[in-house]
Parts: sequence; C-alpha cells; structure tokens
Amino acid sequence: MTEVARRIAEQAMNYVFNPPTAADPVIDYARPDELIAEFAASVGLAIDPHQQALAADALVGACQTIIDRSMHTTHPRFFNQNFAGPEPIAVVGDWLAAALNTTNATFEVAPVFTMMERTVITKMAGLAGYPVDAAANALPPGILCPGGSSGTLHALQLARHRLRPDVLHTGATGERLVVFVSDTAHYATLKSAALMGLGLQAVIEVDTDENGAMIAVALEAAVTQARAEGAVPFAVVATAGTTVTSAFDPLDLIADTCEAEGLWLHVDGCWGGSALFSSQHAGLMEGVHRSDSLIWNLHKMMGITQQCSVLLVKDPTQLAPVFSTKATYIFQADKQFGEYDAGDRTFHCGRRVDVLKAWLTWKTFGDDGFADRVDHGVALADHTRSKLNERPDFAVLVPGSFTNVCFVWVPPELRPLEMATIAEPDHARLHSLATRIKARMQHDGTAMIGVQPVNGINAFRLLYMNRKVATGDVDAVLDLIADYGEQEWRGTAQ
Amino acid sequence: MTEVARRIAEQAMNYVFNPPTAADPVIDYARPDELIAEFAASVGLAIDPHQQALAADALVGACQTIIDRSMHTTHPRFFNQNFAGPEPIAVVGDWLAAALNTTNATFEVAPVFTMMERTVITKMAGLAGYPVDAAANALPPGILCPGGSSGTLHALQLARHRLRPDVLHTGATGERLVVFVSDTAHYATLKSAALMGLGLQAVIEVDTDENGAMIAVALEAAVTQARAEGAVPFAVVATAGTTVTSAFDPLDLIADTCEAEGLWLHVDGCWGGSALFSSQHAGLMEGVHRSDSLIWNLHKMMGITQQCSVLLVKDPTQLAPVFSTKATYIFQADKQFGEYDAGDRTFHCGRRVDVLKAWLTWKTFGDDGFADRVDHGVALADHTRSKLNERPDFAVLVPGSFTNVCFVWVPPELRPLEMATIAEPDHARLHSLATRIKARMQHDGTAMIGVQPVNGINAFRLLYMNRKVATGDVDAVLDLIADYGEQEWRGTAQ
Repeated sequence: MTEVARRIAEQAMNYVFNPPTAADPVIDYARPDELIAEFAASVGLAIDPHQQALAADALVGACQTIIDRSMHTTHPRFFNQNFAGPEPIAVVGDWLAAALNTTNATFEVAPVFTMMERTVITKMAGLAGYPVDAAANALPPGILCPGGSSGTLHALQLARHRLRPDVLHTGATGERLVVFVSDTAHYATLKSAALMGLGLQAVIEVDTDENGAMIAVALEAAVTQARAEGAVPFAVVATAGTTVTSAFDPLDLIADTCEAEGLWLHVDGCWGGSALFSSQHAGLMEGVHRSDSLIWNLHKMMGITQQCSVLLVKDPTQLAPVFSTKATYIFQADKQFGEYDAGDRTFHCGRRVDVLKAWLTWKTFGDDGFADRVDHGVALADHTRSKLNERPDFAVLVPGSFTNVCFVWVPPELRPLEMATIAEPDHARLHSLATRIKARMQHDGTAMIGVQPVNGINAFRLLYMNRKVATGDVDAVLDLIADYGEQEWRGTAQ
Repeated sequence: MTEVARRIAEQAMNYVFNPPTAADPVIDYARPDELIAEFAASVGLAIDPHQQALAADALVGACQTIIDRSMHTTHPRFFNQNFAGPEPIAVVGDWLAAALNTTNATFEVAPVFTMMERTVITKMAGLAGYPVDAAANALPPGILCPGGSSGTLHALQLARHRLRPDVLHTGATGERLVVFVSDTAHYATLKSAALMGLGLQAVIEVDTDENGAMIAVALEAAVTQARAEGAVPFAVVATAGTTVTSAFDPLDLIADTCEAEGLWLHVDGCWGGSALFSSQHAGLMEGVHRSDSLIWNLHKMMGITQQCSVLLVKDPTQLAPVFSTKATYIFQADKQFGEYDAGDRTFHCGRRVDVLKAWLTWKTFGDDGFADRVDHGVALADHTRSKLNERPDFAVLVPGSFTNVCFVWVPPELRPLEMATIAEPDHARLHSLATRIKARMQHDGTAMIGVQPVNGINAFRLLYMNRKVATGDVDAVLDLIADYGEQEWRGTAQ
C-alpha cells in the first residue's frame, strides 16, 4: 500500500518536473461517455456497489489516465481561466502542506503555519497601504479564505455588522440594505447577498465604461437614487481587475463616495490585486488604502496552486466579534498561546494550510520576481493588443489595458468589422463562430482559450500570467484562431 | 529554481514515507518567539520589506525547520483533533491534484474530476439511503465544499429557500425563522445563522442526554414553544457524531418531528457520517435516509487530507436554483457539456480538486478497508473505556459510545471521584489539571490530546481514527497522563 503511494508520488513528480510543452496537446480531449468507457477498461470511474481494494498496477494505470485526460494548466497554450502556469515551487509547497496535514485554525496544531500566515497577511496589508502593526502578537489584518467568494462574503458580513450590529444577534429586520457593484463584476456579490438574506435585489449594478470599469458618477447617482427609494446603502464592492476585461474600478473616486455616504468599501482584487506587486502597474490600485477590506487571490495571477485567497481588513479587531463563537472545545481561554489562533476570526472551522505554498514561492522569487510575473503578463497583453490592431482579420472589442484582451476573428466579408451596423444574420453567424473555433481547439488540443459574450457577441479572451508564455505563443495562437475561423466560417455558410 | 522545488519535493516524500514513529516526539514544541528566532537565524518567517529571492540551500533548510517544528498528525500519539493519520495514498492523491492544478467548477477544465466527483457523491448518497439515479448525466445529489461549515451553510440556505423562496430575491422580511440544534452541536449552525441574517438568536438549542445526544421529546417541545412564541421553525440540524463525545442524535425520531412539522432535516455527519461505512456501526445513522441533506467529512475519520467535505442533498434539483447566477463568462449555455458543470450548484467559484484523494483512497482500500478503519477506531475507544473503568485513577465523564472517550485523571485524595459533592477548591484544582498535563505533554512532545470542558470540568478527549494506533498506544498514553497528573497535582498543592 505504501508502494503504490510511492509510485503515484513519482508520477506526480514526473508531471511537475517534466510538464507538457507547446508541442504536446493542452488537453487530450474526450467526451464524458468516452472518459467513462476508458476508465471502465481498467479501474472504473464509479465507486462500485461493493468496491474492492484494487491492485497497485491498476491504481497506477488509473492515475496515468487521469493525468493524460486532464487539462494541462501549466501548458503555454492554456488561457481558459484566471489561473495558469502554477510554479513548481508552489506545487511542492502545497505538497508539503498536504504531507503535514493540519488545520490552520489553532496555534497548537499549526504553530509554524499560524505565524507564517500572519507574516504573509501583514506583508500584503502593507502593500495595500493598510496600517500594519509589526509586533509578532499583533492581530493580523486579515485571514486566508478557501476562495475569493468566501472572502467577499466575509467582507460583506463585516460591512453589514458595522452599520447594523444588532442583525448578528437578532437577525435581519426587513430593512432594505443594499450594496453597489459594477455591472461587469464577479457574481460573488450576488451570491453573498442571496446567502446573507439581503436578497439578490439588494445588489445594485452600476454602469461601466467601455473597458468595463465602474463609472464613479454613476455610483454616486445610484446611491442617491437608492436612498430616495427608501433603501439603505451599506457597502460598495469595487472590482480591481474584472474577470473578462481586467478593468479596474476607480478606487479613489469610489472611496470619496463611500466616505461621504458612510459606506463600507470592499475591493474585489482577486485578479487585479497582484498589480500591487509591480511598481509599473500598482497605480491601477490607487486608492485601495482607503478601502475597508480587500480580497486578493494569489492562486490566480501569481502561479500559486488552488486555493490561496487572502482577505485583508483595515481594522483587524473587526473579525472576531463577527465570526467568533468562542467554542470551548477548541478555543479554550486557558490554552497556551490561544491568542494566536486564527480559527475564531473566520466563518470556517478547519482550514487547509494554504499559506505555505505562497510563502515559499514568495521567498523563492522575491518581490522582484513577483513584479516580473505581473509585468510579463501585461507586456504579453500589450503585444497582443498591438498585433490584433495590426491585423485586419481581428477586431479588439474592448480597448482595455492590463492582462486581458477580448477580440473576435473577423471573416473576410465583414472586414473592417462594424458592430453597430452588422446585419442580423451575419451577427448570428459571427456569434456562433468563437464557440465553434473553441470546440475545434479543444478537440485538437491545440489551445484552450476562454470564450464569453462581450458587448453582445461571443469573443475570445486571452489573459496572461503564465511565465512560460512568450510572444511567439501569442502569435501562434492568433494564427490558429484565424485558421480555424476561416474553416468554420465557411462551415456556417453552408 | 526547478532544482529547489525538486529538493523540497524529496523532503515531502521523505516525510510521507518515513513518518515519525512513537519513539519520536509528536511535536518539537516551541513558543511563538522561539519560532520567530529560529527562522530568523536562516530564512526569516516574515516576508521582508524588500524580500530578496533566496538561495536553494536556505529554502531547503527552511522547509526542514517547518517539518521539524510542525505537529505530526500521522503520529500514533496525536489525538488532538477530529482528524489524524492521513493515509499516504490520500496525500499523494492530493499531490496529483495540486500538480494538475485546476478547478472543479467546469467540465471543460476538469473533465476527469467532474465525472469523478459525481461518482463519489453518488456512492455516498447511496450509503445514506438517498435515491440515486445511476445515469452518467444525472444531476449529482450533492457537491463538495471547502469544509463542513460551508456544507451546513449551503444546507441551511436550501432549507430557508424551501420554506420562503422569496427571500432569495427580495431578502429577509423580519419574520423570525428559527433552526433547532442540540446544545452539544458544532458551531457551524450558529455561524451560518449569523451569516445568513437569521441572527444568532434564531438558533434554538435543544437539551441533550448524558451522552450529548439530542433528546427527541425536547425537540418536539422546543418546536411547539417556538411556534407559540411567534417564531417560524424551518430546519433542524441533527448531529451524527458530536465533536466532543461522538454522540449521535436519534435521527429517526427527529425525522418524525421534521415530517410532522414540515422542517428541513440537515444532518451534520462531519464526524459520524463515516459510521455508514461499517456494517457494525451504520445503525447509529438509522433514519438518515429521511433527512433532506447531510454533510460528511472524509478528511476527518477516513484518513483523507484536509479538506474533503461532501454535502449530500436528497433532491439534486434544489442546488442550482439557489446557487446559480448563470454567469455568462463561465457557464455558457452554448459550451460543450456545460450541463456537467458543478460550479453553478455551489456558492463557491473556484474549487480545489478535493475528490481525487478520496477516490484514490477508496479504490485502494475498498469498502472493506473503509469499514475496517471505522471499526478499528471504535474498538480502540471500547478498549479505552474498559481500561478506564478498571483503573481507580481515572473517571470517565460520559458513558459514551463510538470513537470518543472523555475522562479525567483523579488524584488519590479524590478517589472515587464524586463530581456532585466535590468541594470547590478541589474542583478548581482538578479543573486546572488537564490543561497543565496537556502543557507538559506538548512541551515534552510525548502526546497531543484534546482538552475541553465536559460537565463543567476540563477533561481529556481521546478519539480514534488513525490506523497506526494500537491498544498499546492507548495504554501508554493513559500511563503518561497518570504520571503527569501525579506530578502536577502535587504542584497545584504548593
């Protein structure tokens, strides 16, 4: 039994240290029924009605099938998601945490990781311009969460509590508390509002500009209108780096409104928070120091494995009163160094050690290495924008900046693309084109690129964070899209 | 940079395949200031103001310090928590998932893991007696969550939605919705109520018997009383395996009340759900098939690494309406096999692949191996109870059953211990004793055992799930507690 574990560990090591290259497929694509059939031939995917213990060879074979049929997210042609290119040092940091298998809830079972989590939170809070107390036993200004949505949920609960502290004990009163977020923001705010009993209607979407950034005067107007309608604004969620276009809401202007109106300012920097690592791009986060909380995912742009979400709060004393239940079976007052326990400052109980991989990667690359990663990503996006603007067979849909580029391939008959005047049948054909091209790429394993509607039409989104991606990869991917585009466009005409 | 990652991978492998034994300390204890000083001598724990990229030797040295100073949760003397003894096969399953670094949100980036998650959920739902549709494309009756608290939060949101569907859109009205839970239950229900805007007061605690199990008639009375006071009951959270005493609420009787009163029955089986693996102990879960939802943590009793929390729901169609936001950038209707995507049936967005380690461990041990693990744990607890009852120097505080045993060491002057008549100064000395003994064990690294108040006095809790623990370990640990007890009792007298 140890032997099979060792062999699978070797498989995992081999995968990390001999990863797929551009010459390999990004995925060896199979449909659900094909996957089921393939596993059925060796170790079935299902846990059988009376599952037997399986032999080592069968298990090792199954792991090879798992590897072969999985998405290769380190691959230089993987652009499907807001994560890519995990660093080997982060992977092994994750491994060591798994090997030590503890929970980051209490000092007594996670002494090193409790202290380590504090140092990473403190450093990041400093980058965000939050006040930092350097004392080792100071309350850390934040907590790691199992994901960005969880972080935003925590932040909105803090926000509600500041305005209406009674709700924590006696429950919501029916008063219409509302939160503002841009119409291009992540769904975490909507999902949080639903879960918190605020209701989906408590989320007021604010208009955005052509890049997808919140329009500050539209926020002001929305707050005024909400008050006029009898609602009670309590928070704004500003996005730093939207999912689709990597737009940054104007934090300083939004902070003005929040200060004037007494609203909690939470920044969803899951993607764009990492701009703070770069002196070139930190300006995008101007004003973040005026926010009350910030969620920032290192597992997105920074090559850390899933998940590594850091919730920062300006006032560290706010967490415990909202999330503590002082459970005596774990957070005993008479326990040694219980004052360091993180577990009573979060909704979650057991928390996987997510900090080690981040700490280790940071110590390996240093601040400059982190900055380089961000700068490299933005430089690739700039290269892409410039290439696309040169080529008549592509149209950039959003002027944009930072890491993301949204565009379509334009069939010969429609060049130059005029979205305002395009005929409906052409629009419909063009709309279906990106998903058809994507399906071809998936099937062939040539690339994996996100597709989503932008300004009403399905568009590709290239976004950059993987250090392995070079300008040559970008050029190759654009050519690939153009080739598939030609073929598929003819297909839709038939 | 690859070289240092490879060296750290070797360290992690060495740790997993040459784990600490009973002859090694369970922890090499250090205070926070000592930890900081020790790291400062090589690689500081803090991320420096301008953090440099560090050399390989320093990083490898730091990882050795991390290992040396961490809690050894595989150690046969680690009894501090509701997890222990992770299996090497689970660790490497976790490693392979980290190496492949994807999110279990969509089929397109997690084809194998999407299908695999369905099979594990389906098998577990079958064990719980939920109706199961074997079709590969059937909606899976559940979702993996990043922890048990998150699972209970999801379940309570489903429960509220069933009774008051308008709240999702228009928010809580001020109506006093209440949920019932035993007074020995986990704090997840309290924390969920606070987060959901129900308020902490919405949680009505129901009396328990001497073992810590909910008294069914007390539940009935509590529901009646709540209605009489104008509250609106909507759910009961029954516990299957409480944290301290591993008590099982009487699910069948509670289900009677829930059916009669129209209440959602959620079972917190984070700990005790695993009884379902064992034909000897599955009877403790009698009635679970009548529940509406069940949260069951494989990372607790089953040797899977953190986290592996499976939320099961009887009606699989209930998840999407409550948690979907139909975000077009990720869950496109025109995407291939999007109907398999799990991401729109959960609050969370990116989800780490937690299923592979469970699947691999299950395939390695088989159903019988899983049953053995549970049976082994309960047999050790039975051995402990029997030993303690034989020895005059110990007193079992809760008759109990299943995996947990709560007890105190009794000083010579207080034998036999009569808690009802103990004098206050003796009570105070005895109360402080367990934490003093624990501090000694921590300091010496001889054992790590949970201490918490039971019936008003600090008591030890031994609980069993680690396959490496044998009856000899139990006997040795009891002797250890007795030795420290003698010494510390004399200390308190001075």
